[in-house]
Amino acid sequence: MLNENKWFTSITDIKPGKIRIRGYDIAELMGNRSFAEVIYLVLRGELPNSAEAKMFDAILASSVDHGVTPPSVLSTRTVTSGGNPLNAAVAAGILAIGDTHGGAIEQCARILQEWASKDGNISELAEKLLDEFIFNKKRLPGYGHRLHNVDPRTVRLFKIAEELDFSGRHIELAVAVQDRFAEVKGRKLPINVDGAIAAVTSDMGFDWRIGKGFFIISRISGLIAHYYEELIRERPMRKLGNPNWEYDGPKARKLK
Amino acid sequence: MLNENKWFTSITDIKPGKIRIRGYDIAELMGNRSFAEVIYLVLRGELPNSAEAKMFDAILASSVDHGVTPPSVLSTRTVTSGGNPLNAAVAAGILAIGDTHGGAIEQCARILQEWASKDGNISELAEKLLDEFIFNKKRLPGYGHRLHNVDPRTVRLFKIAEELDFSGRHIELAVAVQDRFAEVKGRKLPINVDGAIAAVTSDMGFDWRIGKGFFIISRISGLIAHYYEELIRERPMRKLGNPNWEYDGPKARKLK
Amino acid sequence: MLNENKWFTSITDIKPGKIRIRGYDIAELMGNRSFAEVIYLVLRGELPNSAEAKMFDAILASSVDHGVTPPSVLSTRTVTSGGNPLNAAVAAGILAIGDTHGGAIEQCARILQEWASKDGNISELAEKLLDEFIFNKKRLPGYGHRLHNVDPRTVRLFKIAEELDFSGRHIELAVAVQDRFAEVKGRKLPINVDGAIAAVTSDMGFDWRIGKGFFIISRISGLIAHYYEELIRERPMRKLGNPNWEYDGPKARKLK
Amino acid sequence: MLNENKWFTSITDIKPGKIRIRGYDIAELMGNRSFAEVIYLVLRGELPNSAEAKMFDAILASSVDHGVTPPSVLSTRTVTSGGNPLNAAVAAGILAIGDTHGGAIEQCARILQEWASKDGNISELAEKLLDEFIFNKKRLPGYGHRLHNVDPRTVRLFKIAEELDFSGRHIELAVAVQDRFAEVKGRKLPINVDGAIAAVTSDMGFDWRIGKGFFIISRISGLIAHYYEELIRERPMRKLGNPNWEYDGPKARKLK
Repeated sequence: MLNENKWFTSITDIKPGKIRIRGYDIAELMGNRSFAEVIYLVLRGELPNSAEAKMFDAILASSVDHGVTPPSVLSTRTVTSGGNPLNAAVAAGILAIGDTHGGAIEQCARILQEWASKDGNISELAEKLLDEFIFNKKRLPGYGHRLHNVDPRTVRLFKIAEELDFSGRHIELAVAVQDRFAEVKGRKLPINVDGAIAAVTSDMGFDWRIGKGFFIISRISGLIAHYYEELIRERPMRKLGNPNWEYDGPKARKLK
Repeated sequence: MLNENKWFTSITDIKPGKIRIRGYDIAELMGNRSFAEVIYLVLRGELPNSAEAKMFDAILASSVDHGVTPPSVLSTRTVTSGGNPLNAAVAAGILAIGDTHGGAIEQCARILQEWASKDGNISELAEKLLDEFIFNKKRLPGYGHRLHNVDPRTVRLFKIAEELDFSGRHIELAVAVQDRFAEVKGRKLPINVDGAIAAVTSDMGFDWRIGKGFFIISRISGLIAHYYEELIRERPMRKLGNPNWEYDGPKARKLK
Repeated sequence: MLNENKWFTSITDIKPGKIRIRGYDIAELMGNRSFAEVIYLVLRGELPNSAEAKMFDAILASSVDHGVTPPSVLSTRTVTSGGNPLNAAVAAGILAIGDTHGGAIEQCARILQEWASKDGNISELAEKLLDEFIFNKKRLPGYGHRLHNVDPRTVRLFKIAEELDFSGRHIELAVAVQDRFAEVKGRKLPINVDGAIAAVTSDMGFDWRIGKGFFIISRISGLIAHYYEELIRERPMRKLGNPNWEYDGPKARKLK
Repeated sequence: MLNENKWFTSITDIKPGKIRIRGYDIAELMGNRSFAEVIYLVLRGELPNSAEAKMFDAILASSVDHGVTPPSVLSTRTVTSGGNPLNAAVAAGILAIGDTHGGAIEQCARILQEWASKDGNISELAEKLLDEFIFNKKRLPGYGHRLHNVDPRTVRLFKIAEELDFSGRHIELAVAVQDRFAEVKGRKLPINVDGAIAAVTSDMGFDWRIGKGFFIISRISGLIAHYYEELIRERPMRKLGNPNWEYDGPKARKLK
């Protein structure tokens, strides 16, 4: 009777005394493969080769924290300040990681994967891609940053990719779009860290639909550090919000 | 084989074409009982009588919103600002409703229910309760407010309770503790809205363990209003946090 | 220096001893207006008239609970079972209310508001709307239900709307689409409760972008009831998930 | 005027073109330090030495996934199934990581840190600690597992600790309690992975209040893998909950 809706999983097999991640014994992975390699395995189903492992390590290290201003940190600290446990505070931080905060990885990877799969050479594709965005007056996700003119994390990621001889059609396309933009508009719109992660993970073969996941995996330790700092340095219910607000709604009135 | 762990629910029965809440047909409840009465039914298992219904309506109306400063609103707006859907924004707001924000209802109700169940007259119990808290240097949850000296919602709730002749041992104890405090300390520590809700719902027979729930049910519409205002009046990723911060960690240093 | 980014709110004004919701004193609202009326005020900025108040009360009562099977309830109970506080459990439930669970209100209201604002009579618009959906092979949000052939909540909501003489272009369009579907396809695809709420709140003038909010406001008390039932009737970490699963990933393998 | 409530952070310093984590340039960390080392830096304020880095890597790898049955996975998959974005699904999973799921790390570390800081030799402390728990009839957090008699991750973590000559008073106490239990009760209650992580991170000097954080950092990639598997292998709104339930509430009844 309860046979309805049997389902399958290919991630982890569990038996008493045995845990196998994608077929590998967890006890064998521990101590023999780095944390980043095991994350790669869980997400992709296979272990990375040496270049992929180094590249992935750098990607995950790139976004562990960016200070107190991002929405995710404000959200984590606010929930901490309301008197809540670590997991609730971290969950609230992750909830803030939406379309306009971290979401560019996902959207940029989607665009790169869509366009890089088309026939044609990269510079032609970059030209068409940019034309389309300019024509539709849309923002290019993964380009530009509200603080950094040149994002130091992008520079570093691309340098590591070059050293590892790790570059494919997606990185090339991302760079070609950046170059083409400068040509057409006469000003730079540099690839930000979201765009760089999108390009590199696309060359690694990751589906764009987990793009936001790389950012979340990376940032989670930063959120925990902010939870802890709020806990030990600040008093509960402190004024975390921008205090510069004003009420401009209906004037005081009476029920009829 | 799948018979393992059968479980039971006494809240709602569902059949094709029929939904019964605690035994009552939802279609019969709709239009014949107010939203507040149906909430009472879902939570308690029985419909309220007329006085309980009026009292409960006033309780739920009391906390729909309190402006932009509470942690829950900041959390909801921050998640909205990160480019997320309504349900994620509201969930983040609810996550902020912890021990120091709304949690006093729960803790105050726990204390009132524990002490009101003891033998003895109310003024003696109030005396002992307060002695214990003062001796242990603990804060009394449900008393005092960071903004309001006298919480207008408390005044109103107790007035409605009086008009409805709706007062029992828990309200009496809450007031007696307030009076005793003034006597002992020579200054007022008025019951805030959390304490008033705790006292009234305890007299209604609600378990203190759902105390925070009344606040959440009430505040949820306020959070949605803030989500919507953020969406239509503000640009994404705006600076919602208090900008007055400074880095005071380790100076710039190099890897060895 | 910190004048940067002043912001405005028109929802609630707060001063010591005074809380005004959209201009009305909260203490005056409490006891004089129902909970549903105050919710309407917070969301819309104005109090409802008598017919709107009755209609809105029935809408909010319609979705308080639907038993243990919806994703939101499973999510709330699972988080409860993991040993978490009420607010975290409720937040997890709200997180489940997405595109395929409750999200139809939003999408259906968006479609109704878009089409009802066009010129032309309702039956012509219904015809075109349905043609477009059938042509694009898209599902009509707000129509059909996995359990109920005829949703009893829809029947009741439309009956109350009729009694209150409360029907405008959006309800008419929603019904016309349903009738047209039966004509074209030879079978019924009845409006479900999501569709009914979408139609009625659209006639009330609510923006579709808070459509999911009505469902959340309504369901929150059900989620709290399920939290409480899980807490008092079940042991922690019980097997809440469908036990009928199987691992079909890579066979056991060794590191090279 | 807005000088009120200045606050400080010692985690990350941000300037245009420069991001420093605890004083180290992020671009220098990337490619030169592993992801696990950077996480350690963010959480502790200092980089780990070589033994600490290896130990920490193994800890984080230990809990990446444990199949489909844990509450966190059920919660993530349920929210995914409701039609929600990756970040909402992952946040819901983290919300499930409470007192009875992952929470043992925190509680076990608290106990070990409290007792290991007392004077006296380890075996005497273990004896007293256990006596106290048995006398109070309390469960020992971090001991026993519902599936594994001997937790393979514990065995592996302690072996790595031994190889690295990495063992202090907290690991010793944890093991002494386990041995003492077997002596007193005549049966084994082995340290589970939560207890092992608690003991090792306590010897590393981590505050027990971020104990749950190690589990969350580790498990987050597993949750993303489950989100993705649910997305690509299952249909929306499927029956994820244990279907073996029954309504046992009030019989059908009418309003009076």
